Amino acid sequence: MMKTVHVEDRRFKAVYRKVLHRLDVGDRTIEKTVRKILDDVREKGDKAVLRYTEKFDRLKLTPDQMRVDADQTRRAYEKADPAVVESLQYAADRITAFHEKQKKEGFTVQNDGIYLAQRVHPIERVGLYVPGGKAAYPSSVLMNAIPARVAGVPRLVIVSPSPDGVLNPYMLIAADIAGVTEIYRIGGVQAVGALAYGTETIPKVDKIVGPGNQYVAAAKRLVYGLVDIDMIAGPSELLIIADDRANPTYVASDLLSQAEHDEEAVVIFLATSKSLVEKVEREMKAQLARLPRKKIATTSLRHHGVTFIVPDLKQAIAMSNEIAPEHLSLFVAEPFAYLDGIVHAGSVFLGEQTPQALGDYIAGPNHVLPTGGTARFFSPLCVDDFVKRSSVISYSREALEKSGQHLVRIAEVEGLEAHANMVRIRVNNNA
Amino acid sequence: MMKTVHVEDRRFKAVYRKVLHRLDVGDRTIEKTVRKILDDVREKGDKAVLRYTEKFDRLKLTPDQMRVDADQTRRAYEKADPAVVESLQYAADRITAFHEKQKKEGFTVQNDGIYLAQRVHPIERVGLYVPGGKAAYPSSVLMNAIPARVAGVPRLVIVSPSPDGVLNPYMLIAADIAGVTEIYRIGGVQAVGALAYGTETIPKVDKIVGPGNQYVAAAKRLVYGLVDIDMIAGPSELLIIADDRANPTYVASDLLSQAEHDEEAVVIFLATSKSLVEKVEREMKAQLARLPRKKIATTSLRHHGVTFIVPDLKQAIAMSNEIAPEHLSLFVAEPFAYLDGIVHAGSVFLGEQTPQALGDYIAGPNHVLPTGGTARFFSPLCVDDFVKRSSVISYSREALEKSGQHLVRIAEVEGLEAHANMVRIRVNNNA
Repeated sequence: MMKTVHVEDRRFKAVYRKVLHRLDVGDRTIEKTVRKILDDVREKGDKAVLRYTEKFDRLKLTPDQMRVDADQTRRAYEKADPAVVESLQYAADRITAFHEKQKKEGFTVQNDGIYLAQRVHPIERVGLYVPGGKAAYPSSVLMNAIPARVAGVPRLVIVSPSPDGVLNPYMLIAADIAGVTEIYRIGGVQAVGALAYGTETIPKVDKIVGPGNQYVAAAKRLVYGLVDIDMIAGPSELLIIADDRANPTYVASDLLSQAEHDEEAVVIFLATSKSLVEKVEREMKAQLARLPRKKIATTSLRHHGVTFIVPDLKQAIAMSNEIAPEHLSLFVAEPFAYLDGIVHAGSVFLGEQTPQALGDYIAGPNHVLPTGGTARFFSPLCVDDFVKRSSVISYSREALEKSGQHLVRIAEVEGLEAHANMVRIRVNNNA
Repeated sequence: MMKTVHVEDRRFKAVYRKVLHRLDVGDRTIEKTVRKILDDVREKGDKAVLRYTEKFDRLKLTPDQMRVDADQTRRAYEKADPAVVESLQYAADRITAFHEKQKKEGFTVQNDGIYLAQRVHPIERVGLYVPGGKAAYPSSVLMNAIPARVAGVPRLVIVSPSPDGVLNPYMLIAADIAGVTEIYRIGGVQAVGALAYGTETIPKVDKIVGPGNQYVAAAKRLVYGLVDIDMIAGPSELLIIADDRANPTYVASDLLSQAEHDEEAVVIFLATSKSLVEKVEREMKAQLARLPRKKIATTSLRHHGVTFIVPDLKQAIAMSNEIAPEHLSLFVAEPFAYLDGIVHAGSVFLGEQTPQALGDYIAGPNHVLPTGGTARFFSPLCVDDFVKRSSVISYSREALEKSGQHLVRIAEVEGLEAHANMVRIRVNNNA
């Protein structure tokens, strides 16, 4: 089902490089298409947005119909299974509690006539892209919107395509639970453009977050700077490290869960024992047979799945750090003993009673995680992503007199005389 | 010297939009050139870097000569003015002290058999771009490198062009003080490419920071995702708000100091009094006459300078928030009284004894600040920019049994059966 490689082969780098997706400087064909749509939206506003929505989503709207009215959310609750609503609320409460811990205040330093401060403010307007149709995952709405709400963002806007007019009712409920302030039934590059430039109907935002296809990702990348964006995310990844005593049923279940995401999902399994690998393979075959998304999982395992047999856990951890996976699960006897050695991973799952889906849905930490090796420098989405800082400086006359000479010397070395003058003029006047 | 507009004119938006630089989706001609160089470096490594260095910097190097050896730093100290070295050390100590306050630990939450954590690790390898020749400002090296060192980054690499072989000795000294681990005498797009892809000689880094011309900025933008970058920075900006009692000599000095940066520097002056404006204009003319960078300052004031006469300070603050300037100086009687009203600004300077150059050099907060209105969503460079976080999740069997139903319900609604199975398989086995 997955290619198996012994690490002694020393081919492991070549193999994992093949199964992984690494980001590069952008697909130029896609960029050309995306630029054209963005330019149109910037110049023609609503008109361009509506034209592309009719073309791509087969949906003819007037400007007034873009915004989803509150009635639709009410109807979504009426149609919904109350048990699911309860579970979404449970997840939202846990996500909120974890993200509350991330909140940070500014600080002030005051001495010798010098006042310095760092201030923290929420970003004012945030746009959240939610993919359309079945992929309008309510969990994704919670994970993107709740950190923004915890940060104190006052205006939180969803754009989501509704191909042929269909909106996922649980997406609407999740948006309501998460405190989203408005929803527009538009998607694609035109929706990203509308959020970045603003139109007659859609507000210009300061930051755009949320998953999307490669066109949406390219659009976010192109408007970066004009607005802030979250990270550039690729297909999902799971790396499992298992020792000899791992439960093959659980390991198989977790590997398959990752593989069912989509055909590009990456699954890497590092095991210290050949016999475990064989048992896991058998279990996977059995479980796969009963999966509705069998075809997707099979394709992803074939193209983006690989098993490595490693000599020991130490080497497995070293390989994992090199790969820097989005999700890392440890099916080992003493998982906490290995935590300090793990430096590059988006989210780490410890022990066999911690299926990775806990992180997708209900544990509390964010499921928006760095992929493609970017866990080396990117972080899970968090409250910090929805605030911005500013500095404050205030000097007394005495403080400026005492330290001004240092400023003057550095400014002179840099050839910036007017900078030096700022002090000279004040200190002489004061003398 | 600067155009003056009364806010009653209601033209103020049109006017400030003209003087400000706003970012957009990139200059396409520049991008084409930049992509070509990046592709060359990715494919040919050192060979391409050396070829472009010979072409643009008129400097023929062997791979071994790219790295600046420790001897050169020793010679830089020998040639340097000890007073300037002392002042750079003073600045470094203050910058370090302020940034130490930004350091954050992770956290752990533990209850009901559930363990959650947020861990923080420094980014392993950071590249710092330092512009060449006279613009190799030692203050910029301190401001970019010190937060990385405070964060604990173990490998901190400078690339800096040395046109015709010249390196600024104070840049070398600042790098030494700031704890930079290695320096390469290459610059331009080829240096950004070398850091992003790695070559035989230059290490691939995880993040690239530092200022550069528009080619360097375009290159950073294009490699974003493959590595992290700092922000996309445009020309510097200063907005001064002054009440009737402000000292015109000081105001004039600060406006000129901003204008001398470069021809694109933006200077906006909001005053409540016409007579102050007249006095400031007279002072500026007198001070300008003695400035070595008179020509640069005059050009920037003509194209990117504007004075607004506003009815009161409240309106001035509102306009400033709309502009979201990089630097904001308050020359008013009770500056602290206005601080809460200021929400969008990179760095705020309070009172007439706080010249803006304190923030450039010695106060302690970072001088790498958001420009072009991006203070709405970007922040001053800080220690957080050089760390990355990861999450940890661990559940006990009982905790999974108790909460697993919520996971199953959400997974089912999202059509991800294998996700639901992860819980079903465990909870049934446990029962």
